[in-house]
Amino acid sequence: MADLNRLVEALVADMRAREDRGAVASYIPELAHVDAKKFGLAIALPDGEVVASGDCDEPFSIQSISKIFTLTLALGKQGDQLWTRVGREPSGNPFNSIVQLEAESGRPRNPFINAGALAVTDAVLSGRKPREALAEILGFIRMAAEDEAIFIDKSVAQSEKSTGFRNIALANFMKSFARLDSPADYVLGTYFHHCAIAMSCRQLALAGRFLAHSGRVSPKGARLVSGVRARRINALMLTCGCYDASGDFAFRVGLPGKSGVGGGILASAPGRASIAVWSPGLDAAGNSRLGALALERLAREMRWSIFGG
Amino acid sequence: MADLNRLVEALVADMRAREDRGAVASYIPELAHVDAKKFGLAIALPDGEVVASGDCDEPFSIQSISKIFTLTLALGKQGDQLWTRVGREPSGNPFNSIVQLEAESGRPRNPFINAGALAVTDAVLSGRKPREALAEILGFIRMAAEDEAIFIDKSVAQSEKSTGFRNIALANFMKSFARLDSPADYVLGTYFHHCAIAMSCRQLALAGRFLAHSGRVSPKGARLVSGVRARRINALMLTCGCYDASGDFAFRVGLPGKSGVGGGILASAPGRASIAVWSPGLDAAGNSRLGALALERLAREMRWSIFGG
Amino acid sequence: MADLNRLVEALVADMRAREDRGAVASYIPELAHVDAKKFGLAIALPDGEVVASGDCDEPFSIQSISKIFTLTLALGKQGDQLWTRVGREPSGNPFNSIVQLEAESGRPRNPFINAGALAVTDAVLSGRKPREALAEILGFIRMAAEDEAIFIDKSVAQSEKSTGFRNIALANFMKSFARLDSPADYVLGTYFHHCAIAMSCRQLALAGRFLAHSGRVSPKGARLVSGVRARRINALMLTCGCYDASGDFAFRVGLPGKSGVGGGILASAPGRASIAVWSPGLDAAGNSRLGALALERLAREMRWSIFGG
Amino acid sequence: MADLNRLVEALVADMRAREDRGAVASYIPELAHVDAKKFGLAIALPDGEVVASGDCDEPFSIQSISKIFTLTLALGKQGDQLWTRVGREPSGNPFNSIVQLEAESGRPRNPFINAGALAVTDAVLSGRKPREALAEILGFIRMAAEDEAIFIDKSVAQSEKSTGFRNIALANFMKSFARLDSPADYVLGTYFHHCAIAMSCRQLALAGRFLAHSGRVSPKGARLVSGVRARRINALMLTCGCYDASGDFAFRVGLPGKSGVGGGILASAPGRASIAVWSPGLDAAGNSRLGALALERLAREMRWSIFGG
Repeated sequence: MADLNRLVEALVADMRAREDRGAVASYIPELAHVDAKKFGLAIALPDGEVVASGDCDEPFSIQSISKIFTLTLALGKQGDQLWTRVGREPSGNPFNSIVQLEAESGRPRNPFINAGALAVTDAVLSGRKPREALAEILGFIRMAAEDEAIFIDKSVAQSEKSTGFRNIALANFMKSFARLDSPADYVLGTYFHHCAIAMSCRQLALAGRFLAHSGRVSPKGARLVSGVRARRINALMLTCGCYDASGDFAFRVGLPGKSGVGGGILASAPGRASIAVWSPGLDAAGNSRLGALALERLAREMRWSIFGG
Repeated sequence: MADLNRLVEALVADMRAREDRGAVASYIPELAHVDAKKFGLAIALPDGEVVASGDCDEPFSIQSISKIFTLTLALGKQGDQLWTRVGREPSGNPFNSIVQLEAESGRPRNPFINAGALAVTDAVLSGRKPREALAEILGFIRMAAEDEAIFIDKSVAQSEKSTGFRNIALANFMKSFARLDSPADYVLGTYFHHCAIAMSCRQLALAGRFLAHSGRVSPKGARLVSGVRARRINALMLTCGCYDASGDFAFRVGLPGKSGVGGGILASAPGRASIAVWSPGLDAAGNSRLGALALERLAREMRWSIFGG
Repeated sequence: MADLNRLVEALVADMRAREDRGAVASYIPELAHVDAKKFGLAIALPDGEVVASGDCDEPFSIQSISKIFTLTLALGKQGDQLWTRVGREPSGNPFNSIVQLEAESGRPRNPFINAGALAVTDAVLSGRKPREALAEILGFIRMAAEDEAIFIDKSVAQSEKSTGFRNIALANFMKSFARLDSPADYVLGTYFHHCAIAMSCRQLALAGRFLAHSGRVSPKGARLVSGVRARRINALMLTCGCYDASGDFAFRVGLPGKSGVGGGILASAPGRASIAVWSPGLDAAGNSRLGALALERLAREMRWSIFGG
Repeated sequence: MADLNRLVEALVADMRAREDRGAVASYIPELAHVDAKKFGLAIALPDGEVVASGDCDEPFSIQSISKIFTLTLALGKQGDQLWTRVGREPSGNPFNSIVQLEAESGRPRNPFINAGALAVTDAVLSGRKPREALAEILGFIRMAAEDEAIFIDKSVAQSEKSTGFRNIALANFMKSFARLDSPADYVLGTYFHHCAIAMSCRQLALAGRFLAHSGRVSPKGARLVSGVRARRINALMLTCGCYDASGDFAFRVGLPGKSGVGGGILASAPGRASIAVWSPGLDAAGNSRLGALALERLAREMRWSIFGG
C-alpha cells in the first residue's frame, strides 16, 4: 500500500493548496462556522488497514450521509415493503423540491431526497419515540465503525429544527397524503437529530465498510447486512446519492457515493475500499467540490471505477 | 465456461416457458407484428467466445440501443463540448416528456432520452447529409461487431417517420431554442433510421464489447475508444439507460444497460462480458420484461454486479 | 320585484327536487355531517330589500368565501404593497397545489388559492396576535352585514387545525422563502378560524353588498371601501374565485363569484345585486354544483351577466 | 359624444408623448420593422359612430386577436362539442408553454393559448383545404367589419412559417395525442395565415361590435352570433385573452380584451362600445404596454368597467 499512501498524501497536499473550494453551507450557523480550509481523507482497506491523512480525525456534521444508515435499518425492519413508501428512481430535480412529490401523490422518488429520507425515518421510528429510534441509529453506526465515541451534535439538530421550514413543509405534505405513520413532529425530530451526527473521515470510512464488502466489515468479517442488500444500497447511492448531480458524480468518479451538506462524502469501491472525504466547500448542487475532485482522481489512479479499470 | 453455458440454456428455457412477458410495442405496425414469444441471449466473453442461445441469431429492431453508438461517435467528434448541448443527469420523467426540456431551455438532461438522442444525432450529422451520417453510424457498428451484414430496416424507419409526431415535436421544440444545427428534418430522418437498425443478440453483444473492455474489443484487442470514454458511457447507461426505470434496473441487475422498445437490452459487465438479450414484451416503463429478469438472474448467478460480488 | 320573487321560489323548488347535487366535503367531520339536501338563496337588492328563500337563514361554514373579507382588509392595510406578496393571475392548477409556489419562489399567484390566502392572512395579522386579527375580521364582516350575530364555529376551526397538513405544509413552505412575517402557527391559526366563520345566505348576501355597489352598502349608502377597490376585488373573484373552474364559472354564470367547500357561493352583479347561495354538494373542482347552476339560471333570466345582457 | 371625442384625443396625445412603450416584437422581421411610435385608437359606438384618432387607419398585424374570430367560427360549426377538444380555464403559464399540454394529454386549457388556437383552427378546417378555411375566416371578418379591404399579409405568414418551430412542435405534440383531425401542416398553414391578417384600429373596432352587442353589429342590428355565444366569448377574453397577464388586465382595465404580439388589443364594453387600440411596444407578458394603459384610462374615465361603474 506504499503507493496508496503516497497518492493519499499527494491528494491531500494538492487539495489543501487549491482555492476553488466552493462555499460552505450557510443556512444554519453551526455549519457556516466551519473552517473552509479543512480537508480530510480516509480509506479503509480489506485487510483492516486505514490509510488516512489531513483533517481525517476531526468530526464534522455528516448530514445526508446519515441517510445511508437509516435506509439500512429501515430495510432491515421492513424489507421490500419499504418500496411501497418510497421509490428508487433518480429524482431529476433539486434535492428538496416538492414538485415531484405532488405529482406522485406524496411517494418520494428515492430514499435520499429529503422527502424520501423522511419516509425512511418514519419506517425506522415504527411507532416508537424519537429517542428510541435515535439510540438504534447511533448504535448501528457505532457498531459498524467499531467506535463508541460517535455522537449527535445537539446544537446542530436544534438549529435545523428552528430553520427547517422546508422539511417541516415536506413532512406535513406527506402527512396530507397519509404517507407517514408517526406524527410529523416525531419524524422531523428524529430526522434533524440523525442528520446532526458528527463523525471523522476515519470513523465514516470504517462505518461504510459493509458497503464495500457485500455486507461484511471485511471480506471474511462479521456480517451486518446481506450481500444483496449491500449491493442495492450501493446502486441507490450511485443513481441518487449526490442530489441533482448524481449522474455527474457517476460519470466523473465512477463509484457509489453519498454526500452531505457538511462537506463529507462516503464512497465505496466494492471489494476494494471504503472511502470518506471531507472538504466543507460545496458546489452548486450541494456536493463537496474538492471532495468529489479528490475521489475522481483517486478512482482514476487506483483504477477503482466500477465502470471498468 | 461449462457453467455459463448451462446457465444460459437454463435461463432461455425458463424465460420461454413464462407467460408474464409484457406487451409488445404497438405504436408502429412493424414492431407490433413481432412474435412475442421470441427470446434470445448472447454473451461475448473476454477470450472471444460467444455463449448464445434461443433466438440469438434473429435480427430485431434495436431502437434506442442505437443511442449508445451515436453517443460514442458524437463524443469522438466533439469530446466534452458535447456536454454543452446535453446534460448527463437522469431525467426523473417518462422518456419522451417535453416538460423537463421546457424547464431547462431546450437542453435535454441526458443523451438517452429522446430529446437528448436528437441532440446527439445532430452532433453526429455536423452539417452533413443524413445519408453520410447514417453510413458512418452503420459503419461503426459493423466494425465494432465485425459483421458487415448488419442493416437498417427501412420499413421500420418509414413507419416511425409517419407516426413519430412526438419526436417531430421534440426536434422543433429544440429548434425553437436554437439547440439543433441541422434542419429538423435531417435530424429526424437520421434518428428514425439509426433507431431502425436491425441486429441479432449475437451481433449486438459483439458490438458492445468495447464497453466491457475499457474501449477495446477484448482485453488486449483493438481499441475503438479510450478507456475513460468507455467508462463514462457505462456510467450514463447505468444512470439513464432504461428510461424512467433506470434506478430500478441498477437496483435489480447492477449492470450498465441500454434498452430499446424493440425488446432488446445491451448490458456490460466491465472486465467480464458484453451481454445482449431480446424479448419483445415490455413492462410499463418500456423495458423488456423478461430481458431484464434474465439479466438480473445472470448477474446474480455469475456475481457480475458492479456493486459487489 | 314580483318577477324576481317568483324566479327565486322556482329556482329553490327546482334545485331541491334535483338529485345530482354532488358530494359534501368530507375531509373534516364538521363539514361532512351537513345535510346534503339543504339549499338556500338570498339576493340583496339596491333598495335594501332581500329576496330570499329555502334554507336562507341557516348558518353554514363559509370557508374560502372568507378570503374576500381578509383580502379587503389586507388591501386596506397595505394598499398596492400587497401585490409584492401575492400575484393576481389565475393559477391554472388545483387550488392547493404546491407546484406553482415552488416554481415562483413562494409567491402565490393570487389571493384566493390557499397559499395566497395565507399570505393575505399574514398581512392582516401584521405583527399582532391571532385573536386581534380575528376580532378585526369578524368585526368587518358584522359591520358589512349589519348583523352582530355572525360567529366563528370553533369546532370547525379545531378540526381543520388537526387535519390541515397541507395548509401547514404550505405555510412552512412559504416561510422557507421568507414570505410570511408572523410565525407559521399564528398565520395558520388565524386562517383556520376565519375559514370557520358561519353565516346564512341572508347574512352573506348583505355582507357582500359593497362589491355590487362600488364599495358602498347601497348605491348611495355608507362607503366601506373605494370604488376602484371593489371593482378590483370583483375582477379577482371572476378570474380566480372558483378554484380551477373559475374560467368555467365565468363562462357559464358571467358574474364575479367566490365559492367555499362548505357549499356556499357569494356572487355580485355590479349595480344590481349581491347574491348568496348555499348547497353543500360539490362538483369535482370543489364548487357547489347546484349553487353554480342556480346562479347560472338566475343570471340568464335576469340578464345580469357582466358580459352582455 | 363630445366628451368621448375629447378624451380620445387627449389619450392619443398623451400616449404619443410617452417613451415607456416597451419593445416591439422581434421574432420575425416583418413585425420588428414596425415603427414603435405608432399609436391608434378607435371606438365603435352603439349608434354606428366610430370615434377614432392617431394611426387609427393604418393596418397592423392582428396576430392572436384573430383567435377571437376563429373561435367564433369554430363554435358555429361545432357548438359545445368544441369543448371536448379544448378547455376554458386560464392557463397560468406563459402563452406558448408545452408543459400544461403534456400534463393534460394534449388538450389545451383554453382557445387563446397557441395550442388551443391550433385546436380551434383544426375545427374550422374540418377536413377542408387551408385555402377554403382561410377564405371563410377572412370572409367572416370582412362581413363583421363591413369592409372588403381587409387582407392577409403573406410576407408575415411566410416569416412565421419559417421560424415558428415552437408552433410546429405544438401541432405535432397535439397530433401525437390524436388531438388534430387535419394534417399538422394544414393546421399550421391556416394558423400562420389567419394570424397574419392585417387590420386598422377602425376595422378591428367595427369587426368586434358583435361582442359588445350580444351578437349583433348594433343593439338592433344584424345578428352574427347568438347572445349567449357573444357573452361566452367575452368571458373567455376576460379570463384568458391577455396571455399570462389576463388577471392583471381584468384587474386594471375591467373589460374583456384580446391582445396580439403585433401590438393590437380588441376590447369590448358590453352594451357600450367595441374598442381597438394599437401601440407596437409590448410588456413582459407580450401585451401592448401603452395599449393596455390607454384602455385602463378610458374604462375608468367612461366608467365602462364590467366590475362596477
